[in-house]
Amino acid sequence: MSSTVSKPTAAEPIKVALLGCGTVGTEVVRLLHEQADDLAARVGAPVELTGIAVRRPNKHRDVPAELLTTDAAALVARADVDVVVEVIGGIEPVRTLLVDALSAGKSVVTANKALLAENGGELFTAADDSGADLYFEAAVAGAIPLLRPLRESLAGDRITRVMGIVNGTTNYILSAMEATGSGYAEALEEASRLGYAEADPTADVDGFDAAAKAAILASIAFHTRVTAADVHREGISAVTAADIAAARSLGRTVKLLAICERVTDAGGDEAVSVRVHPAMIPKSHPLAGVGGAFNAVFVEADAAGQLMFYGQGAGGAPTASAVLGDLVAVARNRVASGRGPRESAYAELPVRPMGQTETAYHISLDVADQPGVLTQVAAVFAEHGVSIAAVRQEGRDHEPSASLVVVTHAAPDAALRSTVDKVAGLPVVREVVSVMRVEGEEQ
Amino acid sequence: MSSTVSKPTAAEPIKVALLGCGTVGTEVVRLLHEQADDLAARVGAPVELTGIAVRRPNKHRDVPAELLTTDAAALVARADVDVVVEVIGGIEPVRTLLVDALSAGKSVVTANKALLAENGGELFTAADDSGADLYFEAAVAGAIPLLRPLRESLAGDRITRVMGIVNGTTNYILSAMEATGSGYAEALEEASRLGYAEADPTADVDGFDAAAKAAILASIAFHTRVTAADVHREGISAVTAADIAAARSLGRTVKLLAICERVTDAGGDEAVSVRVHPAMIPKSHPLAGVGGAFNAVFVEADAAGQLMFYGQGAGGAPTASAVLGDLVAVARNRVASGRGPRESAYAELPVRPMGQTETAYHISLDVADQPGVLTQVAAVFAEHGVSIAAVRQEGRDHEPSASLVVVTHAAPDAALRSTVDKVAGLPVVREVVSVMRVEGEEQ
Repeated sequence: MSSTVSKPTAAEPIKVALLGCGTVGTEVVRLLHEQADDLAARVGAPVELTGIAVRRPNKHRDVPAELLTTDAAALVARADVDVVVEVIGGIEPVRTLLVDALSAGKSVVTANKALLAENGGELFTAADDSGADLYFEAAVAGAIPLLRPLRESLAGDRITRVMGIVNGTTNYILSAMEATGSGYAEALEEASRLGYAEADPTADVDGFDAAAKAAILASIAFHTRVTAADVHREGISAVTAADIAAARSLGRTVKLLAICERVTDAGGDEAVSVRVHPAMIPKSHPLAGVGGAFNAVFVEADAAGQLMFYGQGAGGAPTASAVLGDLVAVARNRVASGRGPRESAYAELPVRPMGQTETAYHISLDVADQPGVLTQVAAVFAEHGVSIAAVRQEGRDHEPSASLVVVTHAAPDAALRSTVDKVAGLPVVREVVSVMRVEGEEQ
Repeated sequence: MSSTVSKPTAAEPIKVALLGCGTVGTEVVRLLHEQADDLAARVGAPVELTGIAVRRPNKHRDVPAELLTTDAAALVARADVDVVVEVIGGIEPVRTLLVDALSAGKSVVTANKALLAENGGELFTAADDSGADLYFEAAVAGAIPLLRPLRESLAGDRITRVMGIVNGTTNYILSAMEATGSGYAEALEEASRLGYAEADPTADVDGFDAAAKAAILASIAFHTRVTAADVHREGISAVTAADIAAARSLGRTVKLLAICERVTDAGGDEAVSVRVHPAMIPKSHPLAGVGGAFNAVFVEADAAGQLMFYGQGAGGAPTASAVLGDLVAVARNRVASGRGPRESAYAELPVRPMGQTETAYHISLDVADQPGVLTQVAAVFAEHGVSIAAVRQEGRDHEPSASLVVVTHAAPDAALRSTVDKVAGLPVVREVVSVMRVEGEEQ
């Protein structure tokens, strides 16, 4: 192939429309202003704000009033807009606005995880049809450079696993439960009081936020379109102080994990498994030490081995940093008449249902302290084809009950669930104290 | 600006010349072969090896014989070569080969840290003149995606600090000294025996390797050309078991760090400080837990806050993963008639000499156990304008000596050195047991 790359000559400014001006948007405006000279030098042309679409212009005293408009569609359609930066969130009207922008050949930078996890394919198709760029580093793990490394740095490798703490609110709550021994409700209340949880924490605590991010991560890692609906999702509201205590007694800690795996069936066919659920991980695992509102993502690839990315997963400034990084990239591409990487979904791997996905369980039982209990319990596991990795049975002084902890080897999740149901019904089992998946062990 | 991005149409193969076929090169050949279909799908065109330049073709039984040549210059000059991948290492003849390739408009992917730290400017100029790509992720921290995040993800942010463990050999040796209490010589011998240190370990243990990487990191982080000669360099051969013990007694550990800082003088002028030296860091610091042959780099930026990147810093497969990621990127750019980010050295910040760089010292002394010793020692610090952060003096049973540990606040390195020299000469000081800089503390 011949090299026909043209050198950048124009110092014509790159014109940016900003959609939304909340915490992140305000930081984007501030950074664009404060770092104007640096950005121009890095891009090879000035980067200018053409307009900012907001719902209530009188609420935004800290940004130039002449840039504000309530008509987002008209702003996106303006002929002098090269790039649209979207930090509104949600599906509509954003979906329509961004598809229109991309169809018109305007590059889009977005932090909208829900939209990407729901309608990513439509956005990518619009981008490809017009040759526009679609960048979205800020949608997953805030300031942590994660999507670019997965999309680009590891483009020559075969990613087998992405496992991460991608939601700061739930990580804060679980860290607090671990530190204080408190229950879920109490820790959530404290998190709300300190501003780490929203007034309606559903999106965070029920795992919707993490599931959207998992869908995006799996799509990129495995070159396959994965939507939020493909993600098995369990939140943290069922995590008890007993779960945390059980984990601690075994040198483990409880984290809400987004897990994306490349799996192979007996016939050699590949599939992907994508799930969000709380799990126990060993204290020695690199993710175990990630506390409070931080995020971290652990990646495994055939040639690269194990990698970890760590940083602030949310907040105005960190998210704005990721948005600005993307903005510089798409602006550079404009200046060089090039474009960034396109969607890569050629592999089209099927998504394996959760029931068939292999996981390992930690089960803590309160059982009658009498002979034959372990035999009865173990028989249920064997019946379901679930192999036991470790057992710990301990009597309690002056009580007719004992604690029985079973950790399994990996087995299909459906078999594990049936096993637990059956075990719970055994007359010798007084209570199922804790059931939780185990991740990050050397298998 | 109008959008005139052309869509990729050609499935013409991207032709690659490989220079060097050692541990990394062999892995590159293997991955190119094994993942040919995936790479073609990700690039949008097949990626083909045109030739492999080696010194002794009969030594390479594991690669296709018809691709081997001893004439690297002729291979680079071939009209059907689009991309040159260099994994030979060293300055010449590589420098000439790569400048020739870039000048001819061929994209270059290299893992050559020494060359980049020495002659990076020349290579970038050649790339810019022809519009070719120059990628070098594998040159720093092996498989860890680090340069792309710094060059691209953080392009809209202001990086203030990059601090990392970027040499696996020295980290292995220091980890072994910490674990076993052994001295430097013994730990080095063990590392050599196990293959973690080369027969001539100079480049690693004297910090040359880390210094080259520091120069590359500083150049990218601060948009300023920094060469290896600008880097203050101290290796680990002077680190003693006493240093390690002193660190441990204070809840610290000793690491060889590459540190790149953006500094501001009293007049508000910015400069960069780039240095490689062993330092004590608190056990609670994210870098403290990075053991053995792993690498990790801690990055601080104004908006993004603190980030950490962790993974395997060396080895054939991990390094090849980074090379392949770059190869996919430059090949994609060819297919899309675009190009990647150019050198960004517009800031041209001066490099602050080490003597003027502010550091903090940990000094462990063996002193006479008599009244007035602390007063005399403290007076020397005050004389040099060095403020003391913490002091610990402990007598020893049945001995006429005491242990005196002083940790300073940050002060110019030259003042700290003079202080240590003067203190060492005090009659009440029997021995300077350990002197080491302290990093990663909350100031």
